[in-house]
This record gives sequence, C-alpha cells and structure tokens, in this order.
Amino acid sequence: MDLTTFKPGADLARRLDEQDELAPFRTAFVAADADLIYLDGNSLGRLPAQTPQRVQATVEQEWGQGLIRSWNAGWYQAPARIGDKIGELIGAGPGQVVVSDSTSVNLFKLAMAALALRPERDQIVSDVLNFPTDLYVLESCIRLLGGRHRLHLVPSPDGMTPDQTALFAALDERTALLSLSHVEFKSAYLYDAVTGTERAHRAGALVLWDLSHSAGAVPIELDRWGVDLAVGCTYKYLNGGPGAPAFLYVRRDLQETALSPIWGWYGQRSPFSFDLHYEQAEGVTRFLVGTPPVLSLQAIEPALDLILEAGIDRIRKKSVQLTSYLVTLVDTVLAPLGFTLGSPRDPARRGSHVSIRHPEGYRINRALIEEMAVLPDFREPDNIRLGLSPLYTSFVDVWTAVDRIRQVVEEERYHHYPVERLPVT
Amino acid sequence: MDLTTFKPGADLARRLDEQDELAPFRTAFVAADADLIYLDGNSLGRLPAQTPQRVQATVEQEWGQGLIRSWNAGWYQAPARIGDKIGELIGAGPGQVVVSDSTSVNLFKLAMAALALRPERDQIVSDVLNFPTDLYVLESCIRLLGGRHRLHLVPSPDGMTPDQTALFAALDERTALLSLSHVEFKSAYLYDAVTGTERAHRAGALVLWDLSHSAGAVPIELDRWGVDLAVGCTYKYLNGGPGAPAFLYVRRDLQETALSPIWGWYGQRSPFSFDLHYEQAEGVTRFLVGTPPVLSLQAIEPALDLILEAGIDRIRKKSVQLTSYLVTLVDTVLAPLGFTLGSPRDPARRGSHVSIRHPEGYRINRALIEEMAVLPDFREPDNIRLGLSPLYTSFVDVWTAVDRIRQVVEEERYHHYPVERLPVT
Repeated sequence: MDLTTFKPGADLARRLDEQDELAPFRTAFVAADADLIYLDGNSLGRLPAQTPQRVQATVEQEWGQGLIRSWNAGWYQAPARIGDKIGELIGAGPGQVVVSDSTSVNLFKLAMAALALRPERDQIVSDVLNFPTDLYVLESCIRLLGGRHRLHLVPSPDGMTPDQTALFAALDERTALLSLSHVEFKSAYLYDAVTGTERAHRAGALVLWDLSHSAGAVPIELDRWGVDLAVGCTYKYLNGGPGAPAFLYVRRDLQETALSPIWGWYGQRSPFSFDLHYEQAEGVTRFLVGTPPVLSLQAIEPALDLILEAGIDRIRKKSVQLTSYLVTLVDTVLAPLGFTLGSPRDPARRGSHVSIRHPEGYRINRALIEEMAVLPDFREPDNIRLGLSPLYTSFVDVWTAVDRIRQVVEEERYHHYPVERLPVT
Repeated sequence: MDLTTFKPGADLARRLDEQDELAPFRTAFVAADADLIYLDGNSLGRLPAQTPQRVQATVEQEWGQGLIRSWNAGWYQAPARIGDKIGELIGAGPGQVVVSDSTSVNLFKLAMAALALRPERDQIVSDVLNFPTDLYVLESCIRLLGGRHRLHLVPSPDGMTPDQTALFAALDERTALLSLSHVEFKSAYLYDAVTGTERAHRAGALVLWDLSHSAGAVPIELDRWGVDLAVGCTYKYLNGGPGAPAFLYVRRDLQETALSPIWGWYGQRSPFSFDLHYEQAEGVTRFLVGTPPVLSLQAIEPALDLILEAGIDRIRKKSVQLTSYLVTLVDTVLAPLGFTLGSPRDPARRGSHVSIRHPEGYRINRALIEEMAVLPDFREPDNIRLGLSPLYTSFVDVWTAVDRIRQVVEEERYHHYPVERLPVT
C-alpha cells in the first residue's frame, strides 16, 4: 500500500473486500452477533458452518446408533486420517503426522525422543520468546533426565523480536535439540525455519518447531525444509474447536529410531492382541498413546477441508494484505494516540496477528471487549493482539476495529476499568 | 435366585424388569434400532439423551457465539468441576479429582510421581491380568528412569482370576508402587481394593488403582479406603462418549509432594502471567498439562448427572441382579452348549460384565454381531464379554441375548465365519 496516497476510511476497506478472492469463505463460518469484530482467531478460531453438523453426526449417528461399531467404521483411523490432512497443509507427505493429545504432551513426547537420539549431547537451545508452556515442557524433560541437560534460552533485545544470529550461534556440538515457536505468540514474528533447520543440522542437532501460531496461516514445507519434528495445535488458524487435539510430525527417516517416552495401546504394534509387553508400532503411530477424544477429534475435519480448498498460498496472500493494511492504520490512526507497533514491519517476517502496544493496553483491551464489541486479547505487559484470520476476517473488520480503538482512547473510555488484572483472561 | 425353582424364559425377565427401580433411566439414553441388544457398555457406554443438546450448546452457543469468552464462562474450570462430580461418585472429596488427557497419559503422570515419592525403592508390583496398556505405561516409566526398577507381574493361576495372596505377598520393602485394575477387563474380577491398599501401605508402598472398569458400576470410596492415586476412563460405565478425557485422583495429603512429570500451562500456578519458568499449581491441578478437548470434556457431564441421580448403590444392586441372572442363564441354557463361565461366581468379586467362554467364541461373537443384532465384544482367546450397564440394560435384554446366543450355537450359524481375526475389532 502506498502511504502517500493512503486515505484511511471505510471506503477503502470496502474496496479491498470487493477485491478479496477469499471473501466467499466468510459465510463458511458461523456469524456471532452482527456487530462483533472477532480478532482472536489466533487463539480460538471461529466455528465453521459445517462443523455442528459433523459433530452432531458423530454424536447421534456414530455414537448413538453405531455405538462400538463406529471404532471400525472410521474412529480408529481418525488420528492418522486427519493427521494426513494436516500434513497436506504443512508440506508433510502421508504417514508423518498424527493427531493426538495436547500440544504440550506432544512436545513432551517429541522432545524426549529427540534427546534420546542425541545421547552424547546435553543442551537444548530455545529463546525467551518461545511460548512459555513449551519452555515448561522442556524444563520437565530436563528434570526427568536427571538434570544433566541445560536449557539455553537466548535473550531477545526487546522482548518481542528474536536474536536469530545469537540463536544460530548458540548451536554447537553440545546441542541436542533446537526447539522454537515458528511464529512468536506476542509479536507474531515469523522465524526463518529454513535457516534454523539448516543451522541445527549443520551443528548435528535435531530441530522441533511448534507450529501452533503458523499452521493454517503461513506456508510450511516440513518435508522440503528437512524439519525433524514438529507439533502444533488445531484450534487457532485451523479452527478445530476449543482444545481440539493437537498434531505431531516425525520425519519419515527418523521414525525407525525415534521412540515415544509414553507407551500406550494406540502406539502398540498389534493393540488387539493384548500382549503383556509393548512392541512399538511402525511409523509415526507409535507416538499415539491412549484413546483419542473422538468428538473433539472429528470436529477438526470440516475446518481442514475448508482451508485446503482455499489453499495456503491464497490464505497467506490475504493474511499479508490484512496485516499490512492494519500496520498502515496503526501508523496513521493509532500512533498519534500513543500506540506502537509490536509486530515486525516486514510482512515476510510476520505471522497473521498484529500486536499493538500502549501503556494503557490492558484497560483499553477491556473497554474494547466490554463496550465496543471488539474481541482482541491482551498479553503482558502492554500488547493488544489483533488476530486476522484470512478466511473470515474482512478489511472492514480491521477498519472498524481500529476506529473503535480510536474512540476508546480519544474518549478515554478505558478510565472506568481498574488496572488490576482479572484472575483469568 | 433360587435355581430349584428357576425357569428360564422371557416371562421371568419381564417380571424382573417390572420390579426394577432403575427402569425409568432406560429412556434417559438414546435407543439405537429397537431390535439391537447392546452389551458393550463396558467398552463404550450408550449416548445419554441429554448429551446431544449439551454438545450442541457447547458447539453452537459457547464456541460459535461466545467464542474466546467461553474460556472464562466455564471452560477453564471444567476439568476441576467435572472432576469433582466424578469424585462424588468414587468417594473423593472436592479438589482431588480432575479430568485430563487419556487414561494412559494420566497413569504415566501418576506412576512417575509415585516412583519419585519412593526414590529408595525399585519395584512396581502388578499382575498379568492388568489391562495391557497399563503395563505398557509402567514399562515406559521404568525405561525412562534408566531401567533400575523392576515390574513384578504376579501370575494368575487360570489367566482370568488373580492370585491376591501372591500379589499381597509380593509387597515388601523394595516395593514403590502397587498398580492394578480395580475390575479386570476380561473376567470382571473385582479386586479387594481395601485390603490391597492396606497391604501396600503396610509395606510402605503407594497404591494406584485403575478404575476404568469399575467407576460408575461399583461403589468406590477412595478417601475412606486411603487410596493414594487413581485413574480411570469416562467412556465405559460413565457414558461420557468415545475417547472422552480421563480422570485422575491424587489424595489430598500427597498433593504437596507429588509432582507431575509433564509440566504445561494448565498445571502452572499463574498460567496467564506467562512466566518463563514453571511453578507448579497448588493441589491436584498441577497434574493438568495442556488445553483440554472441550467438546469431549463437556459431553461427560450429562451422563454424570444421571449416574449421581440414580445413585451408585442402586446401580450396584441392579448390576449384581443382572450379572447373577445372566450367570444362572449361562448355567442352565449355555453350559449345555459348551460355554463356561469366565467371571467369578461370587457377585461380591464381580464387576458389571460377564465373560462366557467357548472354543468357538470368536466366530460366535461375529455371528451375534452380524446376524443376530447382539453387540458384545470378544477378547482372546475365547471370551465373549457381555457388559450389563444397569442404567439401560434390561433383564429382557439379557434373556434375549442368551436366547440368540443359543440359536447361533444350536443352528451352527457361526460356521460361515473364518477363524482368522479381523484386523481391528
């Protein structure tokens, strides 16, 4: 967008929406109340219109009528079937992705497997911008292994942007694993996964990417990039539903040697022979453990079909347009009100949400939610995250949200709210 | 039932149904086709009539309309809220049960916690009748801890009945943990959890019961019995739906010292401060890890309400009547056709399913499913398991099933089927 000719206004947003080739997908999602601007699809994606029907069929036909027979009629294969669909989206050939457990449990399984594959090495490299729960998981792995590993957390110069030079320089002959979020949860910084993977390999380390904030929003080519291991959630840009089970990827040529730390019947070679001793299944299914939550699992599928139909390249193209448009509005409308941009200016280094920072961010965010029918979210200390999900966020949404943010600040509507944080948000 | 006056027939079954005070609960479950006799509620409980509506509300109102706000409006507390309801059913006071992950992952977490609480001991006692996946989990714990522990599997004299004397004798000063299924998955043998717990404690060991086949069918008093740890699934007699998340129990006075081996945001003291280092939450919630699958999680609740309304004592009373009636029919109708009873004769030692054994069990089971509209399940080598779920199984169901089994054998209908096992059953 050319800033010299840029006139912020609803007209331009409307024109951009008219040119949006993904606009028809908007009606493939259930509308909440008409006035609501939902900008938290980076945390919980909207409900696809087809999903209620799929869930109802799972409950009423498959469970209610099919009963136990439904395990043979599709449920048993669902973790691999849906995993392969996710694989299609993230550049992983069949047989390398399964849906299973939560992202944290999957990260635990893969990190433990990775450390066992590099027994002579004693370092995990990550950075302070990694999603905290990922760091907790890595800490617990280190504790379980007797504390002989060190978690090397590379600092960030500004708490929002990674120091990729320092990160890559930290990889050496002691590094067993490089574990990072592909897109940073506060700033939406998009890491250079190609170089990161390549540098980790050059140091003889394995790499594990958490794709939670990138899958469904950013093109990913796990096979082509030579990634070893990856995990990710399905409820953000994949729109799989609250707490929908997560996915994990194990590169085919690691599948022979990588071993899950938790052995359960779903990862057993012949689960129905009920042998007393575990014999691991071939391939990635050995990383499955217990019985998957079928309602939540199958609810993921309609959303994946939508995303695959739209195509990740068109999604990314619109995502860049949306975030670029928003960055321009931040510069022209919000900067004069005390906001700074918390996300990268370079769209090539930016995921699909934009963080805007303001000293009164917490209270502004509350006013937006409680008075202005805008739903972003807040991350300490001062970030309001605006998630732009290309399949259902319109340019008018972005314009309207910015206009309402302007009103909240200009009219000082946030002054009613205490600065004390609510217990859970 | 007095065998001297016993006349097997549909009349008696009808009379027993007329006297059944739980009969009204039958309509609280969705009927599959009218002719179907469902005897696999020990594997997947039927769909409660209220559940579709609850799931629909979760999907369409809470997810579709409430969006991210629903985390604060009930979802976030659901693992503890539903856990407390399960606690009510299994004799656990509030704050000791949470719903989380799968049974296998929960067993992993609690077994690892237990072994860490007894660092000087190097033995886990279980038996060959334990559910195989539980043994796999224990094997993986031992492997992770460097192989210094031994899994002592006490044999069974007949592959169906535990040797409780040998089990309790195996507990000594080396035993860290006694881990058993409360009700055995093939024979439905009901272990003496009171004595088992007491003997484990006398030896200084901790005890971990898997309640998957007993919760919702058998009275359980975890607090009164002094049980340390327990896990269980919610999709058998709890009717929570396919793969519904499991529960775990940690006795209150162990909660200070027991530590989860997998650290995630849901078990963090202040998850929304996004600290870089894990600090464990107070109480049992530290055993939560990642985001729970909300659709599958909330689907559990309507079934629990039904079970609590019926009351576990009335459920157990009818369960004993149902299984006793079936045992009598096995003796009088099926024994002459080559069946033997695979379950305990003493109702005090029997859970809520009955195993009947026959050299042609596999093929008879297939004929029942494919031709006779009877749904039991089969467990190697020769067990047909008939699950009797007191809230919806009638005495006429039991009579009709036995009569159809008789037909299959008398008319040799099973001869059409190959003896080779289907890949997944």
